[in-house]
Amino acid sequence: MRLARQLEKLGTETAFAVSGAAAAWAAKGHKVYPFHLGDINIPTPANIVEAAYKAIRDGYTGYCPAAGIPELRAVIADDVGRKRGVTYSAENVSVQPGGKPVIGKFIAAVMDPGDEVLYPNPGYPIYESQIEYQGGVAVPYGYVEKDGGFELDIDAIRRSITPRTKALIYNNYQNPTGAQSTRQEMEELAELALKHDLWVLSDDAYYEMRYSGEPLSIVNLPGMQERTVILYTCSKRFAMTGWRLGAAIGPKEVIDVINKLNTNAESCTTHFIQRAMVEAIPGDTSGPDQILQILRERRDAAVAGLNAIDGISIQAPESTFYLFPNVTKILERKGMSDVNQLMDEALVRTNVSFCTRKHFGRPLPGEKHAYIRLAYSGIDVDDIREGLQRLKEYFESSE
Amino acid sequence: MRLARQLEKLGTETAFAVSGAAAAWAAKGHKVYPFHLGDINIPTPANIVEAAYKAIRDGYTGYCPAAGIPELRAVIADDVGRKRGVTYSAENVSVQPGGKPVIGKFIAAVMDPGDEVLYPNPGYPIYESQIEYQGGVAVPYGYVEKDGGFELDIDAIRRSITPRTKALIYNNYQNPTGAQSTRQEMEELAELALKHDLWVLSDDAYYEMRYSGEPLSIVNLPGMQERTVILYTCSKRFAMTGWRLGAAIGPKEVIDVINKLNTNAESCTTHFIQRAMVEAIPGDTSGPDQILQILRERRDAAVAGLNAIDGISIQAPESTFYLFPNVTKILERKGMSDVNQLMDEALVRTNVSFCTRKHFGRPLPGEKHAYIRLAYSGIDVDDIREGLQRLKEYFESSE
Repeated sequence: MRLARQLEKLGTETAFAVSGAAAAWAAKGHKVYPFHLGDINIPTPANIVEAAYKAIRDGYTGYCPAAGIPELRAVIADDVGRKRGVTYSAENVSVQPGGKPVIGKFIAAVMDPGDEVLYPNPGYPIYESQIEYQGGVAVPYGYVEKDGGFELDIDAIRRSITPRTKALIYNNYQNPTGAQSTRQEMEELAELALKHDLWVLSDDAYYEMRYSGEPLSIVNLPGMQERTVILYTCSKRFAMTGWRLGAAIGPKEVIDVINKLNTNAESCTTHFIQRAMVEAIPGDTSGPDQILQILRERRDAAVAGLNAIDGISIQAPESTFYLFPNVTKILERKGMSDVNQLMDEALVRTNVSFCTRKHFGRPLPGEKHAYIRLAYSGIDVDDIREGLQRLKEYFESSE
Repeated sequence: MRLARQLEKLGTETAFAVSGAAAAWAAKGHKVYPFHLGDINIPTPANIVEAAYKAIRDGYTGYCPAAGIPELRAVIADDVGRKRGVTYSAENVSVQPGGKPVIGKFIAAVMDPGDEVLYPNPGYPIYESQIEYQGGVAVPYGYVEKDGGFELDIDAIRRSITPRTKALIYNNYQNPTGAQSTRQEMEELAELALKHDLWVLSDDAYYEMRYSGEPLSIVNLPGMQERTVILYTCSKRFAMTGWRLGAAIGPKEVIDVINKLNTNAESCTTHFIQRAMVEAIPGDTSGPDQILQILRERRDAAVAGLNAIDGISIQAPESTFYLFPNVTKILERKGMSDVNQLMDEALVRTNVSFCTRKHFGRPLPGEKHAYIRLAYSGIDVDDIREGLQRLKEYFESSE
């Protein structure tokens, strides 16, 4: 009796180990500054809470269609389309228990064993895990740092495409770098997808988490809507990470397949939560607006706090709730070679907890710089200031 | 750009087509008697509704561990162990968005491509779909009808085991037959599992849906707990099908792997629902007791209504909410050869909607009898009586 050998290909989110270390340190009586969390410590808007309670009492507690309830599919189609300047209908939407399930189901829908899939690295570690677990070849592409911001390494993507390349995973408004494409960069990417006939997963988890500027979606570019599946989630916009509601939006032929995968996996997504979101998604925006305002203040405090550290210089990303400062000079000052050593020592010396580049994929050949990732979604402004002041003292010391 | 060829192996629940036909018939203004539904038209107990609402307001709206919150894991371990006469702890429990996800994750945890897995047929169609989709060989075993009840075809199971057999799926208190093992039958099955070193999935979805008698679990037999994963669900006992809460319970080594699959699939199961069930599972049993009482009355009405039909004879199953009458004589009377023709005509002529044996797997070689499946979980007693009276008139006619 042994377990499946296939499991050797299955990855995980190593960032959970950081949460574990932070919790263990807190359990010893230390006040931890939790910059490692990708979760949100802001309440879900009250109108959603009340709508869910009403939906339960109204009896939306039985099974619903595997694809999601028709009303929610229509609402998501309209909202996602309108915000990207394209048209979707209900049949283009498959409701999911969160945004994450879209990753594995997209790969299952378009990739066969042996196919190659391009994915961002640094990036969300589940991309690589799902590609490899499902028998594909995970081909990473990186980012180039320019003036404290990040650009796609388009040349690396171009060089990596082969006849076996089946799909490209694209996370604009990116975790962990906060990178966002210019229109030109997105056009170059779309040109490659068209030229090589690739499916695209557009991970739009942070599409609506914007502090300035107008978002741009790759589905808005000619020829792209018919080859792109959007990962959509209510988690961030509505501070609903633990509710588990998201969707895949794309061409009907792919969505039909994803619906069939739903029937095989979880049957359907929680019924009354879907019902609650039928009114909340197109409705009152004061909840999401307030969430964004809170996050904007945190971003500004965190960017200021980091830029006050000698040796760190970052731009304020227009979206996401992550910062990805280059800490190469800090490591040099301390004579360290491993950014995870910096992380471990920072927790013990300053109580500040954060992730590093290494939690977002195996470093690529030739990478010369070291980065850490700070999330400000789970920490209030006062603690951001206090924590980064402590970090400054530690980072500016050579010990 | 084409979809994955791997998808050709993916099955589905064909019973959804029956729901579609019933809905289309109802939309034409007919009153449909819905015996096809595996859903429950009984409200979730009020204490659970209020506990969920409180949990949302108390802020249990963020991510929680992929394995489930520790308190719920402990509560399920205690409840499941106590009701089976064995001991589990929290580390033996992986919380899931429903019972169904346990099927695919169990198979992923123990089966490699090319391995053989035994599964019941007639049975829940997702077993076969997941085995084949994940590259295994799905080997069906059947049931033998004795005096209106069903026994496992142990001889067929024994004959089907090969050196490549890796696991056995066992659904005692079975959908669709309502079959339950005697202790002797279960011991014979356990002996085979031990002798051939098989993993066992014990689909216990209906373990607590009992109208009489004491349940017996295969994990209670010597040597079986360490090779068995239990599929547990809140769906039936608490009338929570649309809430999506269940769990896998088994040896820590398998549960650890399933937790890693959770991280890759849905991140976690809805947080506040888990919180609500921490008190509900070990707490007040009046809700579940009332659900069982309602279902018992329906069962008695449905069994009486079916036995009143000339040519049908069934025993009242002690568990599940399904009846699986042999309709061979009805087909003979009508000169029909296809049980699905009987289903189609019954809907139009009597407004009674039900599934057939064919919705629970491809008929096995040598099967001589025809069966239909009626569920009484989604239809009230008065409609059961009315519907079965109409069915009686149609079944007893030769036209």
